[in-house]
Amino acid sequence: MQVALENNIVFVVIDYLAILCWGLSGGLAAIRKGYDIFTIMLCGWLTALGGGLVRDVMLGALPPVGITDKGYVLTTLFSGVIAVVAHPEITKLKWTMTVIDALGLGLFAVNGTAKALAYGSSGMTAVFLGMFTALAGGLIRDLFIGDVPMIIRDKHLYAVPSFIGCILTVLVWRGVRYGWFDMRSEMLLDVLIVIIVVALRLLSVGFNVTLPGAIERRHVYLP
Amino acid sequence: MQVALENNIVFVVIDYLAILCWGLSGGLAAIRKGYDIFTIMLCGWLTALGGGLVRDVMLGALPPVGITDKGYVLTTLFSGVIAVVAHPEITKLKWTMTVIDALGLGLFAVNGTAKALAYGSSGMTAVFLGMFTALAGGLIRDLFIGDVPMIIRDKHLYAVPSFIGCILTVLVWRGVRYGWFDMRSEMLLDVLIVIIVVALRLLSVGFNVTLPGAIERRHVYLP
Amino acid sequence: MQVALENNIVFVVIDYLAILCWGLSGGLAAIRKGYDIFTIMLCGWLTALGGGLVRDVMLGALPPVGITDKGYVLTTLFSGVIAVVAHPEITKLKWTMTVIDALGLGLFAVNGTAKALAYGSSGMTAVFLGMFTALAGGLIRDLFIGDVPMIIRDKHLYAVPSFIGCILTVLVWRGVRYGWFDMRSEMLLDVLIVIIVVALRLLSVGFNVTLPGAIERRHVYLP
Repeated sequence: MQVALENNIVFVVIDYLAILCWGLSGGLAAIRKGYDIFTIMLCGWLTALGGGLVRDVMLGALPPVGITDKGYVLTTLFSGVIAVVAHPEITKLKWTMTVIDALGLGLFAVNGTAKALAYGSSGMTAVFLGMFTALAGGLIRDLFIGDVPMIIRDKHLYAVPSFIGCILTVLVWRGVRYGWFDMRSEMLLDVLIVIIVVALRLLSVGFNVTLPGAIERRHVYLP
Repeated sequence: MQVALENNIVFVVIDYLAILCWGLSGGLAAIRKGYDIFTIMLCGWLTALGGGLVRDVMLGALPPVGITDKGYVLTTLFSGVIAVVAHPEITKLKWTMTVIDALGLGLFAVNGTAKALAYGSSGMTAVFLGMFTALAGGLIRDLFIGDVPMIIRDKHLYAVPSFIGCILTVLVWRGVRYGWFDMRSEMLLDVLIVIIVVALRLLSVGFNVTLPGAIERRHVYLP
Repeated sequence: MQVALENNIVFVVIDYLAILCWGLSGGLAAIRKGYDIFTIMLCGWLTALGGGLVRDVMLGALPPVGITDKGYVLTTLFSGVIAVVAHPEITKLKWTMTVIDALGLGLFAVNGTAKALAYGSSGMTAVFLGMFTALAGGLIRDLFIGDVPMIIRDKHLYAVPSFIGCILTVLVWRGVRYGWFDMRSEMLLDVLIVIIVVALRLLSVGFNVTLPGAIERRHVYLP
């Protein structure tokens, strides 16, 4: 699956597009707070590649891809430069950004889970590592610039779609191992998973769907 | 010692009890801030298993137990569910929580130190890793939800009892290696260490014992 | 190079001096916030050795030097004790501290990059790891005590000099591999790099040189 994802030109394009977009959103977060160019670049890099960094540290795949892959790093630096120049335009393209951001969420979840499975992780571990890949980058950036993390601040579904995407990726992977699908349909199913994650995220934002909190009760059943 | 701790039914019960309790306290911290169910679950997991995660990353025991051990992960999710339903009761049982929390502190310190020693760490490294196990989970949770870390906020002794517990664990381990005690008395001494940590923590809370800060001086001895 | 740096008595002295000074500045940060002795010690240790910790985790050189090297750890604890006693004097020696801090910045950048290169990292990865070594300690400390990270708060050049130092270290290392310099001149060039980093940092503080932020524009070129 890892191979399928990495060799397919469509996935490679979406992968770089996701990194570019997350780099932009990280750069914008730093620009909004008035930070200097270096911090803008750093935030772009952290947002786009910080999640994979955490995944690789947990997997023991060291040094992590986020500091070794020249293509990825240059893409985040490039996105930082774009943010510095074109931030007023990017800020205006709010829905476009939300869509590409959701694409990144889906793709990073599927890719992170697949990489963990390819390293021999169990299903549960792979779900954790897929979610780290999808969520940890934005989380670290928010800690860094002193914001409440986005996955807490944004009341709409963000972590949950990636969670569902990771679980579906594990199921599809197991299906291939058990001989239910071949490698070809696995790739199509992976694309479908990304679409499901994107749809869940966008529907949640569009229709204002949120998760409930703790159950509120008037009575405390204790003496 | 690792073997002794892990095979003994009493320790296994306390271990799961500690994880359950730390999961509850993490869930409650998220409920108090009004976060949704997913964040509550995540905080429970982070609090209970984040310390072991940091220890395993430092040790190179990858992937860490906090994302691979199904029993541990399910316990934290279960504690999240309990927190969602029964948070008014748990909040009322303040002293019970403080006691089980202190039990967790002692047990995680002893267990973390023992695991590091079993991996061939030196005494000093094992003390560090035992303290990471006992303290890093709550620390990460507090950073995540934007609180000042508990080990800073709570003026009572929290890190110090775990520090003493870690040092005593190393001494006992060395005693067994030098032939001063057998494995049987090692286990009893480990139980004693947990009791000492719990006692120090509870006495500090009960009698309001705190550490001093920097020395205050009126005179600055500089030209 | 690693060997050259580690065997040379001048470098060893500066290395310990840098750790001592960073330990002092970390301890002072905790004292300023009124924390207790344990937190002061912890902040000293985090500031001085946290950067190397992150580098070693990324490199897979586990357990990290920050929890295994007795000389380093004792130096940070010693600096914590000094801070507890002599904080009014240290606070007064502001420029001295800035100079030694800059020395630490340069030396940690060169040392961290060299260690990464000695472990077989590529040039880009080594630059990242050198910067982690120089910057991550202060960053973690600031997250821990709830400050906006210094590399953001301090508008003067801080990350940029260390970045330049890391790149120059990689170039010198490559020069030796290509036979342009011998080991002896490599050491002299490394000293020169440290001096350059210190000079850039001090000039930036002294003459109030800062990096620009994002480009400000009145017109948004979008329909």
